[in-house]
Amino acid sequence: MTLAQYLAAQQSLVDRTLDHWVPAETVPPQTIHKAMRYSLFAGGKRIRPVLCIAAAEAVSDSPVGVESVAITLELIHTYSLIHDDLPALDNDDLRRGMPTCHKVFGEAMAILAGDALLTLAFEVLSRIPTTAERGAALVRELATASGTVGGMIGGQVHDLEGEGVRPTAELLESIHRAKTGALLRASLRMGAIFAGADEEQLSALSSFGEHAGLAFQIVDDVLDVEESSESLGKTAGKDAEQQKITFPAVYGLERSRAMAEEERLGAHLALQSFDERAERLRELADLIVRRKA
Amino acid sequence: MTLAQYLAAQQSLVDRTLDHWVPAETVPPQTIHKAMRYSLFAGGKRIRPVLCIAAAEAVSDSPVGVESVAITLELIHTYSLIHDDLPALDNDDLRRGMPTCHKVFGEAMAILAGDALLTLAFEVLSRIPTTAERGAALVRELATASGTVGGMIGGQVHDLEGEGVRPTAELLESIHRAKTGALLRASLRMGAIFAGADEEQLSALSSFGEHAGLAFQIVDDVLDVEESSESLGKTAGKDAEQQKITFPAVYGLERSRAMAEEERLGAHLALQSFDERAERLRELADLIVRRKA
Repeated sequence: MTLAQYLAAQQSLVDRTLDHWVPAETVPPQTIHKAMRYSLFAGGKRIRPVLCIAAAEAVSDSPVGVESVAITLELIHTYSLIHDDLPALDNDDLRRGMPTCHKVFGEAMAILAGDALLTLAFEVLSRIPTTAERGAALVRELATASGTVGGMIGGQVHDLEGEGVRPTAELLESIHRAKTGALLRASLRMGAIFAGADEEQLSALSSFGEHAGLAFQIVDDVLDVEESSESLGKTAGKDAEQQKITFPAVYGLERSRAMAEEERLGAHLALQSFDERAERLRELADLIVRRKA
Repeated sequence: MTLAQYLAAQQSLVDRTLDHWVPAETVPPQTIHKAMRYSLFAGGKRIRPVLCIAAAEAVSDSPVGVESVAITLELIHTYSLIHDDLPALDNDDLRRGMPTCHKVFGEAMAILAGDALLTLAFEVLSRIPTTAERGAALVRELATASGTVGGMIGGQVHDLEGEGVRPTAELLESIHRAKTGALLRASLRMGAIFAGADEEQLSALSSFGEHAGLAFQIVDDVLDVEESSESLGKTAGKDAEQQKITFPAVYGLERSRAMAEEERLGAHLALQSFDERAERLRELADLIVRRKA
């Protein structure tokens, strides 16, 4: 199976699993379920769930049920996009080439749809059959990676407060590590925990997640500068306009590209002790750095 | 110990437990921890945590650690108030006699502070030492009671969509049951689950929660009509102004008062099989109906 075929198969599995866990549009109150599904099925790349599944596959031959763990990361990611796009935050009209949730359903419903996706992530985790220890560890990983201290919300606060501030390498790193890094790292860790990874494996996959996550963010920032609004499907160049602290703003484009490549190599190194079962992860690290959108 | 002394002791325990679990204002990013603490310590009555603790005490002589379970209900309740008060939703300037979170910290921070309290509730649950089954059951209870299908968010959506709609008894009941009833019922159930209740006890305490929750909502609606803005600490009469569907709007004040009394009696009946360890719950049901604010 080529990587493209693997990705298509995993994305299809993720979509079906989301469809299974998220209440149908016919379930009352219908509006919020429509809003949740509108944003969930707006064409995301499912990078977090795919990393979660691939991490589980690197640890275990047949990690049955890991797709339900994986979609909790997409639920959290999507809620954060919906809230981030709100007028009070980034005030974005477009996301993945489509009108943002609040443009279609109104601000009130978008706030509640975000809350609902966040809540549903934990409900799903509580309903996944696994051992006691793993169940608690999964909730702990997801909540910590999404929270205020070193987690996603903390990164959003830093980001918000950093607008207009002089961009420094330290600030950039702390924002990235929290805002996108923590959840990407958790994607690897949750797959590994579910599949029964030992401490050494968990530590290696965490390291892989940190490198791949940093590469992902650098490339995202570089693409924002390079790409036109049309091909990226969101309002490109917006980072600069909002004076966001980005890798190109601190290091310039050339150095940023080189840093992404260094992180790609770091990700490969982290997987040295793994056999061919980690091959998909290695390919995903390459794809993250070489993607064009 | 009188009920007043018991309440003061429990409220103090709840405040100390919140202080333990919520990051200090000195922990970065400081702003969001200030915003979270501002709303958490704005003088709430802690009715949900107190019901949770009293339910555990009705089941077990010494439910050590239940206060950590209890505060997760206050974290959820407070997040819902912060988001509900936002301009896009109820647009409230005052809450418990103080400026609402977004009036003090801005809309962006209020949205993130709500998200953070919601996330923290599940992190706390994942860190409470208990059996595997009970841990998963607690997460499931809290997430379901807070969610879209029969839970708190679902009730908020109904409420939002019900504004200006002709108030009917059916609509009123479904809104209440979801918007406030589910979390109050979960307060009882989570205390009971943590303390190791058997099926019969859990079912009885659920029934108590439904009656007490309904009584609580009826009295809340009645007080909104009766009380002046000053003594209630929020903008009273706002329900009528916003054409919210309330018990007085559907049944009138007199019938609403009688219904609250019926629910009080229903709550007492639900506890028939419990001994004197449930006495605090009985007193709390009385207090809910007879309170003046």
